[in-house]
Formats: sequence, C-alpha cells, structure tokens
Amino acid sequence: MTISMHAASVPIFVRMLGNALQWLDKAESHAQAKKFDPAVYLTARLAPDMLPFGNQIQIACDAVKFGVARIAGVEAPKFADDEKTLADLRARIQKTLDFIESVPADRIDGTEDKDVVVPRRDGSMTLKGEFYLKHFVLPNFFFHVTTTYALLRHWGVDLGKTDYLGAFGAAAR
Amino acid sequence: MTISMHAASVPIFVRMLGNALQWLDKAESHAQAKKFDPAVYLTARLAPDMLPFGNQIQIACDAVKFGVARIAGVEAPKFADDEKTLADLRARIQKTLDFIESVPADRIDGTEDKDVVVPRRDGSMTLKGEFYLKHFVLPNFFFHVTTTYALLRHWGVDLGKTDYLGAFGAAAR
Repeated sequence: MTISMHAASVPIFVRMLGNALQWLDKAESHAQAKKFDPAVYLTARLAPDMLPFGNQIQIACDAVKFGVARIAGVEAPKFADDEKTLADLRARIQKTLDFIESVPADRIDGTEDKDVVVPRRDGSMTLKGEFYLKHFVLPNFFFHVTTTYALLRHWGVDLGKTDYLGAFGAAAR
Repeated sequence: MTISMHAASVPIFVRMLGNALQWLDKAESHAQAKKFDPAVYLTARLAPDMLPFGNQIQIACDAVKFGVARIAGVEAPKFADDEKTLADLRARIQKTLDFIESVPADRIDGTEDKDVVVPRRDGSMTLKGEFYLKHFVLPNFFFHVTTTYALLRHWGVDLGKTDYLGAFGAAAR
C-alpha cells in the first residue's frame, strides 16, 4: 500500500485553498467591523522587501497550478495577475481549484521519475516528478499560504490553528 | 510506481529542518553585524497573540517528532522546551533530526490506513495514517517553519526563497 502522485498532491492543495477561502471571509468581516476597505489587505507586507498579501495568494495559486500542470504535462491556464479586491482573490483561488481538480488523476499518477523542467530566474532546472513535488511544490505552496495567513493574523484578523488546518469532523475525512 | 509513507514524510522534514539550521546561521550573523544579542530573536512575534520565535521552532520540531512517532508507533523522545539561545534551538533541531532519521523506514511504510490517535485540547481524534500525514502533520510543520522564516525576514535577516527551499544542485537531489 502506497500513495500515488495524485494522492500526494491535489487533495492537499484543494483542502488548504479551501481553508484559505474561509480566511478571506473572516478578513472581510474584520474589515467591516473595523470599517476599513478590505482592499487594503492587498498592500500588507511582513517586510518591506517581501511581496504583499495579494501577490502571496497569486503565487500560492500559481505554485499548485504550475506544479500540477508540469507534473501532468498539460497546459496551465493563464491568469492575468490583476486582482484588486478580496472578491478577485477568491475568484483566483476558485479558478485554481477548478483547474487542479480538472486534471485527471491518471495524468499525475506514475510521474515519480518523470523529468520536470522548472523555469527559474537563472535558467531552468530539471527535477524528477517526486522530488519536484516534495521539495519544491509543497514547500513553496505552504510558504505562500502560511504567509497569507500570517499577514491576516498580523493585521488582527481573528484566526487560529483550526482555521489554518481546517475541520477534522467525520465529513472532512 | 508510487510513494511510500516514509518517502512522503521524513525526507521532506529532514530537508526543511536542514534549511532552517542555515537560517539560524544567517540570523546569528545579522545579530553580530547589528550588535544585538541573538537571544532577542526568541521573543519575536508576528502578532501579540501568536507564539514567539523560540516556540515556533519547538513546535515545528514537535510536529514531526510526534508525527513520525505516532505513525511509526514508537515512543517520541521527551524534550524539555527550555531553549534560551539560538544554539539551544539548533540543538533542538538536531535532536529532532536524529530522532526522525533513527526510525526505520519499514516502521513508517504501510501505515496509510493505520488508525493514529492525535491528542487535541478538546479530547483526541483518530485519523488514518495517510490523512494524518497529508492534512495535519505536513501543513502544521510547514506552518511553523514558515512562521520561523517570516519572523526572521520581518526582523531584517537577509533571507530569500533560495534559503527557504534549499539548494537544488546535483548534490542535493
């Protein structure tokens, strides 16, 4: 008994992006309670040379969009990176979910040893599918979702570990 | 061809904890350059009601210590949570690495459907091994390592995505 490449990837991304949609709901309620424009969140940064909130969500989405596309060998949909509101960011997450859930599991399964070409600023590198998933896509995705969460916490949104991890009731398993 | 439970867990933790050791080296150099006591890092928080830096590292370590122990059905070593310096935190990470690398892969492999009992504040819950790894241990671990990284970035340490993800040269694969 083992885990397939699809099982080791898409369900993790789907669950966390679903959790992130709920953080945005709480962020919106917080802005309403404090009477500020929720679009202000998009400018929040943890350091002056870190990318702001809106970009963190865009990159979290792209981490899994390109991750799944490259592993499966399918074309990734193009998104314009023009989100200006929380509603826009929600739509970005939903489009990403729609794409990664649309890729058939059997395109992803069996790709452990497949050569995956990953573009980087200084050229490209080729990693095996399993290594790419475990040591690039997963850490990179969690980096940007956790930074998204941390920015909301830093700005006072009432979130806790349960919001981060999501529900564990019978229906969620 | 598929991924075993061991392959889907320990190598990911080992690589990221190794990366974190390097962040601590950079944090120490930054403190020396700015002439502050590096123990001050241990008090850094992203929000008043988030745990400080030292606890983030302790919990990142415990996430994988208990994760591996529960999945493998072995006793986790007890650590005193008394770290006061960066050197103490480095030792905590090293002890964690030593433990998770000491657990034989065949104790971890084949546990996809094993019932794992996870203590929580409001009682305990039982999750299947694969679900527990993918939707609890991995996200929880990455939460605390990313928060560790974010705190250092927030406090001005010169880190970038390459430090977070680690090297991808031939020797690292």
